[in-house]
Amino acid sequence: MLELASYVGARWVAGTGAAHTLLNPTTEEPLARASSEGIDLDAALRHARTVGGPALRAMTFAERGAMLKAIADAMQGEREALLDLAIANGGNTRSDAKFDVDGAIATLLAYSETGLSLGAARFLVDGEGIQLGRSARFHGQHVAVPRRGVAVLINAFNFPAWGFAEKAAVALLAGMPVLSKPATSSAMVAHRIMQIIVERKLAPEGTLSFLVGSARDLVTHLGAQDVVAFTGSGETGAQIRSSRNVVRHAVRVNIEADSLNAAVLGPDVEPRSDMYELFLKDVVRDMTQKAGQKCTAIRRILVPQEWYGSVKQDLVELLGAVRVGDPKYEDTRMGPLASREQLADAREGVRVLGGRHAFGGPAPVGSKGFFMSPTLIEEPAEAVHEREVFGPVAALIRYSSNPAEIVARGNGGLVSSVYSEDQDFIERTVMELAPHHGRIFLGHPKIELSPGPGTVLPQLVHGGPGRAGGGEELGGPRGLALYMQRVALEGSRPVIARILGKA
Amino acid sequence: MLELASYVGARWVAGTGAAHTLLNPTTEEPLARASSEGIDLDAALRHARTVGGPALRAMTFAERGAMLKAIADAMQGEREALLDLAIANGGNTRSDAKFDVDGAIATLLAYSETGLSLGAARFLVDGEGIQLGRSARFHGQHVAVPRRGVAVLINAFNFPAWGFAEKAAVALLAGMPVLSKPATSSAMVAHRIMQIIVERKLAPEGTLSFLVGSARDLVTHLGAQDVVAFTGSGETGAQIRSSRNVVRHAVRVNIEADSLNAAVLGPDVEPRSDMYELFLKDVVRDMTQKAGQKCTAIRRILVPQEWYGSVKQDLVELLGAVRVGDPKYEDTRMGPLASREQLADAREGVRVLGGRHAFGGPAPVGSKGFFMSPTLIEEPAEAVHEREVFGPVAALIRYSSNPAEIVARGNGGLVSSVYSEDQDFIERTVMELAPHHGRIFLGHPKIELSPGPGTVLPQLVHGGPGRAGGGEELGGPRGLALYMQRVALEGSRPVIARILGKA
Repeated sequence: MLELASYVGARWVAGTGAAHTLLNPTTEEPLARASSEGIDLDAALRHARTVGGPALRAMTFAERGAMLKAIADAMQGEREALLDLAIANGGNTRSDAKFDVDGAIATLLAYSETGLSLGAARFLVDGEGIQLGRSARFHGQHVAVPRRGVAVLINAFNFPAWGFAEKAAVALLAGMPVLSKPATSSAMVAHRIMQIIVERKLAPEGTLSFLVGSARDLVTHLGAQDVVAFTGSGETGAQIRSSRNVVRHAVRVNIEADSLNAAVLGPDVEPRSDMYELFLKDVVRDMTQKAGQKCTAIRRILVPQEWYGSVKQDLVELLGAVRVGDPKYEDTRMGPLASREQLADAREGVRVLGGRHAFGGPAPVGSKGFFMSPTLIEEPAEAVHEREVFGPVAALIRYSSNPAEIVARGNGGLVSSVYSEDQDFIERTVMELAPHHGRIFLGHPKIELSPGPGTVLPQLVHGGPGRAGGGEELGGPRGLALYMQRVALEGSRPVIARILGKA
Repeated sequence: MLELASYVGARWVAGTGAAHTLLNPTTEEPLARASSEGIDLDAALRHARTVGGPALRAMTFAERGAMLKAIADAMQGEREALLDLAIANGGNTRSDAKFDVDGAIATLLAYSETGLSLGAARFLVDGEGIQLGRSARFHGQHVAVPRRGVAVLINAFNFPAWGFAEKAAVALLAGMPVLSKPATSSAMVAHRIMQIIVERKLAPEGTLSFLVGSARDLVTHLGAQDVVAFTGSGETGAQIRSSRNVVRHAVRVNIEADSLNAAVLGPDVEPRSDMYELFLKDVVRDMTQKAGQKCTAIRRILVPQEWYGSVKQDLVELLGAVRVGDPKYEDTRMGPLASREQLADAREGVRVLGGRHAFGGPAPVGSKGFFMSPTLIEEPAEAVHEREVFGPVAALIRYSSNPAEIVARGNGGLVSSVYSEDQDFIERTVMELAPHHGRIFLGHPKIELSPGPGTVLPQLVHGGPGRAGGGEELGGPRGLALYMQRVALEGSRPVIARILGKA
């Protein structure tokens, strides 16, 4: 069986000890094994800091951007192989697999362009110069420089390609070497991407390392100049954030965790209207794409009392047409969940949400593979605002007055969406939702190829307060801030001007 | 004796139970008592969130700025009384007291102007609109809106006025109600400022609350929309950051903690030159102003081997001329430390730093009051890069090659300074210091009224990575980000334009 190795200290290193077996979640066949036991994590981090850091900092933003483009191009060249791996190891439909791999490529290309636009500089000039005294001589200027540590990027199982790319693109462009750690169960895609990068020498030595298997005590090896960017469960996020070492050295941590994303249908939207149909389409896509295993997927469907019956009937009908099964068949619309653990967790979540099942439920589907029916819950328990069920599961919630108040019970989320053409309703709802979210999607039927709320775009920030982890990634050049130190230069204006001139 | 009360829920409330006694650190006379026992913290926070929050969010930035100006003007009107309190309760010389009170007023005025420049808006538009699709219709725009919680502002004992003002000005301007908690030992100045604000009704109900005495379990009452901004010891900062509740709800926390600020004399700076004299002046000011109790004070004095003897001799002479004593006498240059605990801690710190005492030392000074001699340490132990001695204490360190490497051992700081006229040396040193600092001060003898590295300016960011807590405050409009939620609006361009038009 294939043994996945880690790439640390500029070489491939296989772990020792008990390995984790990666399965095909459709057939439960074992595909590969991975272990990080025995790997010298301290040495791996040191190599990244001392070899990769200086190499990256010597490159201009444009050069770092060109590196990202080369990675994107190489992935594009191996796209078919990557899709096949995602189908086999992730239980992805071909459409799901494209979503992941093409999302990764698009994000790398977007940051490659950001790099080009930042040009020949090696650090950022932040804002205008500031006159500090009565005379113009006393001057201040903020700049942002790459942090001197390692960016430890810990990704979730659902997007092995995109999750890698969206973090690594930003960190590398900022000038920080990366140690990327995919979730083990679906690591084959990320592992193949790393192989492609290494085989073609697309990144200078030490700039990109890769750890497969358990993260072990990785965060206890981090210091004041390191960064952790984590996507995954709130529980693991909390462990990282409260780790003694992280707290003591103020290791910078970004967490993207649980989120009970809501879609709000406006009271003005009559059934059968274009806006109504868009709403249904976005809800069904988010429930079934990647079998609902997207951190941005709609979990709470808020519908005005008046249209409740209609929405319910339409969703039940649309979900009934979703063919669940082996993703190798072209007419399969939804594959299995990613692992036995995820399936068990999603089934348990359905039980916790209570209510009635307008469609589906937690009953087993088939005898092999980690399959689950799309499940639409009615009259859920209050837990619907607390428990993220990471599967093809959403709850229908009726509202009579202010939907934003109901959404806010989720205590912070990544994205919520509003479907309405009543500008007053939109503005009122957006302003009430805004403090609780990182992004608000406004459905509009005239936007061609609208990606819906579930798609993370590199140009817009991704993250959210509270339950969502309090983090922020992407957002075009905004994302660089996580990996840089902002510092104010204070002194004589000509001296500072010369420092910037050599930037 | 004066009983200091807290101001919560729009009324003054005295604590019950054992009170802390506030002393005059010069005479050890008791001046006042304070306790927060028995105060309903949940109710205080709720009142701020539900009464103060809506009131502030209804105001424009210009209106919030006008409120800050009114507070500054009222403080200016009571300046003499505030200075007297600072001298009595803080052991400040009159010059120290002015530094604190005038710093507070200047910061309030600076943010008042920021408010005016932001005008009639109630939230921030962040950056340009972004075309997201092939057609211009699909559009993105980032905005930043006030968070819906309370800004809990916990200040250190050394700047009861400025510490209050620099945090409250930014939070209030951002649109968040404030609960301010001064350090108990020196709370009389902050308490009087709060009385002035309440007496003159300068802030709408619920927008500004005040808790004197122990913070008790305040942070366990906070939620996802609240913010904690803390200045104080790294140890307390770590407790706040790892508090279960803070971690679980991703309560936003900003910490400004320990810092081993360095001043670096360039090899080009010959004794008796203007740059050399400026360097000496800044070092002596930082060692003695506020008896060295400034988070930004120079703790490590890095001098090239060649000038070591000269610098040592000059510093010893200058420190010898500093008259330590009762701040009520006009020729007193340095008063006592703020409390018995601070004195004990500083004396213990001197012991930990080891080395030899070129001047001063930990021996008791006088029989009354918390006095300590300015102390210049030579050949310190490695602890000089780890232990912040919060008093009139600094260590002289010689370097032969790269001073930035030595500075970096401090593992993250608020500010370091470079005194040189060799542009290559400046650039090389600044670029190496930058990732480890929030600010770099470049000494220049031609800048009139140069405040030196120890003065925090509202226009420049204040904070630092690693040991300094990993936080960032001030920096003009940059400071608002801590108290706001950035959110991406994604949808139809005209719909988003209309949302912004009503801003």
